[in-house]
Amino acid sequence: MQNVDTLIYAGWIIPVVPENVVYEHHAIAINEGKIIAILPSDQAASSFTARLTHRLNTHLVIPGLINTHTHAAMTLLRGFASDLPLSDWLTQRIWRAETACVSREFVAEGTKLAIAEMLRGGVTCFNDMYFFPDVVAEVAEQVGMRASIGLIVIDFPTVWAQNPDEYLQKGREVYQRFEQHPLLKFTVSPHAPYTVSDAPLQAAYQLAESLDLRFHIHVHETADEITQSLAQYQLRPLERLDKLGVLSSRTLAVHLTQLTEAEITQLAEKSVHVLHCPESNLKLASGFCPITQLHQAGVNVALGTDGAASNDDLDMLGEMRTAALLAKGVSQNAKSIPANVALQMATLNGARALGIDHLTGSLEAGKAADLVAIDMQQIETQPIYDILSQLVYSVSRERVTDVWIAGKHLLKSRALTSLDIRDVAAKTVLWRDKVLHSIAEK
Amino acid sequence: MQNVDTLIYAGWIIPVVPENVVYEHHAIAINEGKIIAILPSDQAASSFTARLTHRLNTHLVIPGLINTHTHAAMTLLRGFASDLPLSDWLTQRIWRAETACVSREFVAEGTKLAIAEMLRGGVTCFNDMYFFPDVVAEVAEQVGMRASIGLIVIDFPTVWAQNPDEYLQKGREVYQRFEQHPLLKFTVSPHAPYTVSDAPLQAAYQLAESLDLRFHIHVHETADEITQSLAQYQLRPLERLDKLGVLSSRTLAVHLTQLTEAEITQLAEKSVHVLHCPESNLKLASGFCPITQLHQAGVNVALGTDGAASNDDLDMLGEMRTAALLAKGVSQNAKSIPANVALQMATLNGARALGIDHLTGSLEAGKAADLVAIDMQQIETQPIYDILSQLVYSVSRERVTDVWIAGKHLLKSRALTSLDIRDVAAKTVLWRDKVLHSIAEK
Repeated sequence: MQNVDTLIYAGWIIPVVPENVVYEHHAIAINEGKIIAILPSDQAASSFTARLTHRLNTHLVIPGLINTHTHAAMTLLRGFASDLPLSDWLTQRIWRAETACVSREFVAEGTKLAIAEMLRGGVTCFNDMYFFPDVVAEVAEQVGMRASIGLIVIDFPTVWAQNPDEYLQKGREVYQRFEQHPLLKFTVSPHAPYTVSDAPLQAAYQLAESLDLRFHIHVHETADEITQSLAQYQLRPLERLDKLGVLSSRTLAVHLTQLTEAEITQLAEKSVHVLHCPESNLKLASGFCPITQLHQAGVNVALGTDGAASNDDLDMLGEMRTAALLAKGVSQNAKSIPANVALQMATLNGARALGIDHLTGSLEAGKAADLVAIDMQQIETQPIYDILSQLVYSVSRERVTDVWIAGKHLLKSRALTSLDIRDVAAKTVLWRDKVLHSIAEK
Repeated sequence: MQNVDTLIYAGWIIPVVPENVVYEHHAIAINEGKIIAILPSDQAASSFTARLTHRLNTHLVIPGLINTHTHAAMTLLRGFASDLPLSDWLTQRIWRAETACVSREFVAEGTKLAIAEMLRGGVTCFNDMYFFPDVVAEVAEQVGMRASIGLIVIDFPTVWAQNPDEYLQKGREVYQRFEQHPLLKFTVSPHAPYTVSDAPLQAAYQLAESLDLRFHIHVHETADEITQSLAQYQLRPLERLDKLGVLSSRTLAVHLTQLTEAEITQLAEKSVHVLHCPESNLKLASGFCPITQLHQAGVNVALGTDGAASNDDLDMLGEMRTAALLAKGVSQNAKSIPANVALQMATLNGARALGIDHLTGSLEAGKAADLVAIDMQQIETQPIYDILSQLVYSVSRERVTDVWIAGKHLLKSRALTSLDIRDVAAKTVLWRDKVLHSIAEK
């Protein structure tokens, strides 16, 4: 008998690797934050003794969901600007509110709200792009959340930095401060081709190369972006990024709603990762990212919620469902992005994109114990013919009962163990009032 | 002081009529199943005494949601055939299971499961199309659910009837049996242009006219349907229906993913109601119903989930959100189908389509007390800048706490009062086993 920290018995386990496999009545043995073994329940009982045993016989256990694109602090602006196109949304509402309110405290409280919501919905890792990345790192560390944090770069001055050089310098300092943290990674994150000029784009890419980080950027979000780029640079944004030498397996390209066939081939050849945010693209009427063709071309497609100000939630189970449904509608093929592929996009493909698939993204011995338990007994997920279909097409995030990150039990029967949810809720109400007052004053 | 049965104090009330209005800190007075008044909380306290008082200060109260197209009993086939196009889904999976299993008991248990799910998600009325409409009526009556029940007509024999004449005759008998029921209405429901030939379509329309009922039919669900109709009749299905004289304000046309501009004008001119089922259309890759143009042309567009075998839920809050998001994506206009219009489609427009807008669909004095309370205090719906935006874009159905139909409290702090949910769940598991066994035997 081997001693371990935790044994989780589950009705079903979908490990993601191997593909298309469901283990019924199995257990996961966890020690020192890592998965030691996944084996039939009776074998687990005769092989392991555990300090903590969880019996989740009506539950499905899956790898923690990976939200590969969000702006966590913007959760404080959820519902602040609905039913507007991207340009009006950004310039008339969001940037005004941000100019008036964004501060270290705003980012700290907004990120706590976002992490609380994500943990309650089975998200164990998020890839962020926002100001004050050091604050995001502090909050993630404090809560025990896995995160990939963007070191933002933008041409114009903000409360975080005055110019591209300062963004890059401050980004490097944040990286150096948290470099050794086991749950934190960083990306260099120029905002978009239309907000970052050539020299800082190249400098950002060089920083990413020198620190071996991902290069995370919004690209081809709308048709307007293409038109503007053609007018200003006589190049489509992807063409311009390619000329600047910043497209590679290091590159995380968010949105890509406007793609030619040649560009799809190019993305595959360059091994660029595509971060697909279907609900934000729908809400802002940005266009449809052709994930069926991207997936067929061999491009790694992962999923993100985008910020809650354009979604309006950080619900990766919902995003996975929308991605699977929308891909069928857009490609006019009901077999496109079947349930198992959608789940891969929400887990393993996200880990690949962020360069952490050796650590997480599937339930395999040796990987971190980042996992989510979902109660399947409610009538809304009954009857069960195919547990994978129920997971993608029927489950809602309120059925997530427990979440572990690196073996730590951060959501326990729906209660957060490392965040005071009443304090988060109270601060959220205060921030809403501050946003409304500061907007009214202007 | 006036005596009433019930007073409900709410943090917010969205009555739908008048449009775009939110009442904060108001109360709804209910007597003998009807809304007597909606007034500020302090005035309510000094004007009414009630046998039952509910204080829902963190809740939003809205009209009950109206699911204008479903096949309730098919909830027993949820997840039975995912990731398949309509033709394969129908002929290879669904019809096989139905042939093997559909019976009075299947319909009774499936309808109970569906109603349980709908009530837990804030749906107070559903428009059904399935076999054994008498059983659907019995179950709805027993539970106290408002329903519009399809008297199905189809060319081929099933367990319900052998030929169109028998379908019509049995339908008439079901209508006569329940004609006086205050919560039940009926529609004459030929399945689709491709499964019902000309004579029974006309006979069905005549029956609808003679009983003053709606005429409820799937139309233009897929491009294949158009192609087949052109080959067989040298007419597009809508053209054929028009020639047969069955398009009018009596007609409920479900799906309509394939429409020319002339057809949109024709639907508006004939006052046909469109029942839009966006999630089913996505999952079966059927196409996009152009609801932005239909709405602009003045067509009454209402929402439905379709059956849970192609959705895979009966979640009208989710369907409203998908409809609002998808309309923006498809029309390339982020202002299309804003939150208030989406809510109308899920409530008042549904009541109009079913011909019951004098009874329900909005919160107005004199209408039935069909209403839903939603807890808005959870962090997933915070902060609140715009309660209507939160309702459409952030709320999930698990936040529905209470539902009343005609003043009866059918969901009470999430517990069903007129259905034994354990029994429903147990029967659902038994039916899954029967379906699997009967399919295996064939």
